[in-house]
Amino acid sequence: MYELWYWPGIPGRGEFPRLALEAGKIPYRDMAVEAGEEGYKALAKNMGLERATPPYAPPYLIAGEMVIGQSANILLYLGEKHGLAPQDQAGRLWVHQVQLTIADMVTEAHDTHHPVSYSAYYEDQKVEAKRRAEDFRDCRIPKYLAWFERILARRGDWLAGGRWSYADLSLFQLIEGLNFAFPRRMARIGSDTPRVLALHEAVKRLPELQDYLSSERRQPFSHGIFRHYPELDGD
Amino acid sequence: MYELWYWPGIPGRGEFPRLALEAGKIPYRDMAVEAGEEGYKALAKNMGLERATPPYAPPYLIAGEMVIGQSANILLYLGEKHGLAPQDQAGRLWVHQVQLTIADMVTEAHDTHHPVSYSAYYEDQKVEAKRRAEDFRDCRIPKYLAWFERILARRGDWLAGGRWSYADLSLFQLIEGLNFAFPRRMARIGSDTPRVLALHEAVKRLPELQDYLSSERRQPFSHGIFRHYPELDGD
Repeated sequence: MYELWYWPGIPGRGEFPRLALEAGKIPYRDMAVEAGEEGYKALAKNMGLERATPPYAPPYLIAGEMVIGQSANILLYLGEKHGLAPQDQAGRLWVHQVQLTIADMVTEAHDTHHPVSYSAYYEDQKVEAKRRAEDFRDCRIPKYLAWFERILARRGDWLAGGRWSYADLSLFQLIEGLNFAFPRRMARIGSDTPRVLALHEAVKRLPELQDYLSSERRQPFSHGIFRHYPELDGD
Repeated sequence: MYELWYWPGIPGRGEFPRLALEAGKIPYRDMAVEAGEEGYKALAKNMGLERATPPYAPPYLIAGEMVIGQSANILLYLGEKHGLAPQDQAGRLWVHQVQLTIADMVTEAHDTHHPVSYSAYYEDQKVEAKRRAEDFRDCRIPKYLAWFERILARRGDWLAGGRWSYADLSLFQLIEGLNFAFPRRMARIGSDTPRVLALHEAVKRLPELQDYLSSERRQPFSHGIFRHYPELDGD
């Protein structure tokens, strides 16, 4: 059985492999979440273990002898092993490319509230955050979403073609996060990328995900990568 | 023959696949560089072509029918195809994990001079840049380099074991960039991570790379991802 390790209490980057595990009906244990109040301590202890392949940061997946870090890398593994992505080389690399671009946007979304220091509090970088968030809303969100829209216009309902892949699940999660963090802006510009919104809706309604999305295992957004600070949003 | 597409005039993210192609003695054309003064225009035109798998940004590699974007994804492909990484699953995923972490640090190095807007000039975000660069020097460089050092302490001379992989070439390039951008800080803290410095030296002396590193194809750092602004450095 796989062990997924990620900070408990936030969806964060852990939610990308988690959605793939859930939609793929792949048995796993969510180790730090299971540990309850001891979750942080358990994760810190596990991170510190002497290993030939230590992860730099959570999430990481323990798969037998392997310790696989980096969310996109975990998905590359799960996609190949469990058929959550095309199996041919071109399709496999394409879905991974999309995933890496989603990961880039996730980092940029995080940096809107932590633009100058990852260790300092948001409250100590609010001025800088306001500027970065404005740039993110005005320049970056439209540029990324236009790229996803362009792909879907060319390829159909899903990013890789005939059926959903792990990248579709991740794009759903990215849109969920953007809707949470920037509700006013997303409400205004959503109609510019109707295919992206349709994909978001289609993933939300996937039969494979209904149990999970209505369960307590699905952790709400709060103080993680996607945060709702009204002063960072705008029409 | 492969076509590599990247902004001409800077090493940037294009240098990571470029180093792998050069060290692997893999024939390729460096399309925008070859186009000389028309390089930017040629790249913009190529980016705009109607494709089933459009890259979000350079670099991308055209390999027959495939258009492979994201530098780490290009390296994943080249590593498998040309033996520039271990061929077993565990080794392949491990090298990719390291590469993705290098890519994260590259983005953070870029953001030291562009902390609040990717489209605005550095001169218009100097105040914010000073703060982000200080955090990068004090917190992020030590944290990342300590992780690489920990890996090498455990595994030996190379990140994946017995011989160099594309991730070793990339770590060399990352250290080159840090030395260029933050020479004072790197001079002070280099001795904390002797194995990382030794790897940097070992790659610099690889017989496979000597032709390239002394050629005009090796573009110097200037106004790309790694920039030397003395006010962003510090002892």
